[in-house]
Amino acid sequence: MRWARVLDRFALIQDDLVFPVSGSPFGEYRRTGERIPLADVRLQPPVVPPTFYAVGLNYAAHVAHANATMPDRPEVGYRANSALIGHRAPVVKPADCTGRFEAEAELVAVVGARLRRCSRDEAVAGIFGWTIGNDVSARAWQHSDRTFWRAKNSDTFKPMGPWIETDADPLTASTTVTVDGETVAHFTTGAMIFDPYDYLVEISRYITLVPGDVLWMGTDAVVPLKPGTTLGISITGIGTLQNPIVQEES
Amino acid sequence: MRWARVLDRFALIQDDLVFPVSGSPFGEYRRTGERIPLADVRLQPPVVPPTFYAVGLNYAAHVAHANATMPDRPEVGYRANSALIGHRAPVVKPADCTGRFEAEAELVAVVGARLRRCSRDEAVAGIFGWTIGNDVSARAWQHSDRTFWRAKNSDTFKPMGPWIETDADPLTASTTVTVDGETVAHFTTGAMIFDPYDYLVEISRYITLVPGDVLWMGTDAVVPLKPGTTLGISITGIGTLQNPIVQEES
Repeated sequence: MRWARVLDRFALIQDDLVFPVSGSPFGEYRRTGERIPLADVRLQPPVVPPTFYAVGLNYAAHVAHANATMPDRPEVGYRANSALIGHRAPVVKPADCTGRFEAEAELVAVVGARLRRCSRDEAVAGIFGWTIGNDVSARAWQHSDRTFWRAKNSDTFKPMGPWIETDADPLTASTTVTVDGETVAHFTTGAMIFDPYDYLVEISRYITLVPGDVLWMGTDAVVPLKPGTTLGISITGIGTLQNPIVQEES
Repeated sequence: MRWARVLDRFALIQDDLVFPVSGSPFGEYRRTGERIPLADVRLQPPVVPPTFYAVGLNYAAHVAHANATMPDRPEVGYRANSALIGHRAPVVKPADCTGRFEAEAELVAVVGARLRRCSRDEAVAGIFGWTIGNDVSARAWQHSDRTFWRAKNSDTFKPMGPWIETDADPLTASTTVTVDGETVAHFTTGAMIFDPYDYLVEISRYITLVPGDVLWMGTDAVVPLKPGTTLGISITGIGTLQNPIVQEES
């Protein structure tokens, strides 16, 4: 199944049609009877997570790129819901943002169960589905600031979507990044240092995960973002997240 | 006015009575007609923030305590909603948490308006009210981990409450920390390096703040947390946040 959000409601997507529901895919839901052509609706981020987890360094090449030491255990970080945008919404490069401005193409796991001290099997069963994220990063701020607040959480810096696919197996998938439709990067989605289940097991040793939480899995492809172009991230079995990049006027 | 949350609803508090409402203090609301003695209800965290901002180092003594350099601008961080608990709920010290386990008594600003590129006057007008937070911290994890995920966001590590007071002026208030009712620390709440309005102006240069967002203002009082005791944080004009500390069995 494909779950999206449109008009502040959850909705099922079948082929090119959108079927809004009342309620939530994480609990009870019911189709409202409406059906809308997919081309006619704006897709919002497919979930507003209770908690927004994000893995920093999770692919060997990205660890080297970041000049970091190899993670020896699955330690998670956070991003802010305030930065979320959906499929096709513009990523705005702030007027005073200088230096490297980059996309990080990421697999996103969406939690579907309450997990505390879960086993690996419970973590596997506790995934609701999968979507795609772009961990947009302003590197000068990432290096100059004490935290990632504006480097990774400025408005529009967290595209997520286009929808949640419940039937994918992204650990056997591949991720492709395009600029204006042309492939600029490609990697094996599952070639992670620690996989989503490793993270859920570790987080749940101390923290209760709940339905709707998202876990962004880190990237193996850092791609420059240029205003005037459109960035695409495709993961086989899930779909394609596209966002135009625009320059904020000062 | 005093706003709390009980039974997953917002509620007004007057004297020793709780009046639940439908709707939200940040939008439209209406009393439901119920009135419940305050002593009979469990107070939840008074708001579940869309985004949970937290200042790290904001008092000169705490900067020295942390062996950190003095902040030269208001840079904010984040905490996780998953860790929030309300007044009187127990803070659980994890079984495998060793080393310093400490309270940080904090003023919390609750945002009441949509703020983007706001002026200082707009920031002042954009505050909905004030509450109290305890930024519980496990220092060994804070030092050993790449992020603050379990050091500051383990389950129960973010007591907030007891309610939001809309009429306080906490910058002229004082903060008192007690253990089992005995005063162990006291500081001038407003003796901050950067005040809440400085932070809102700076955050809103890049990020849209929305009603219900919270901004924890940092602490000038780090107090050891001992299982079997009850920690209290009082801020004049707001109230007292109390939480028992309990040891998790391994």
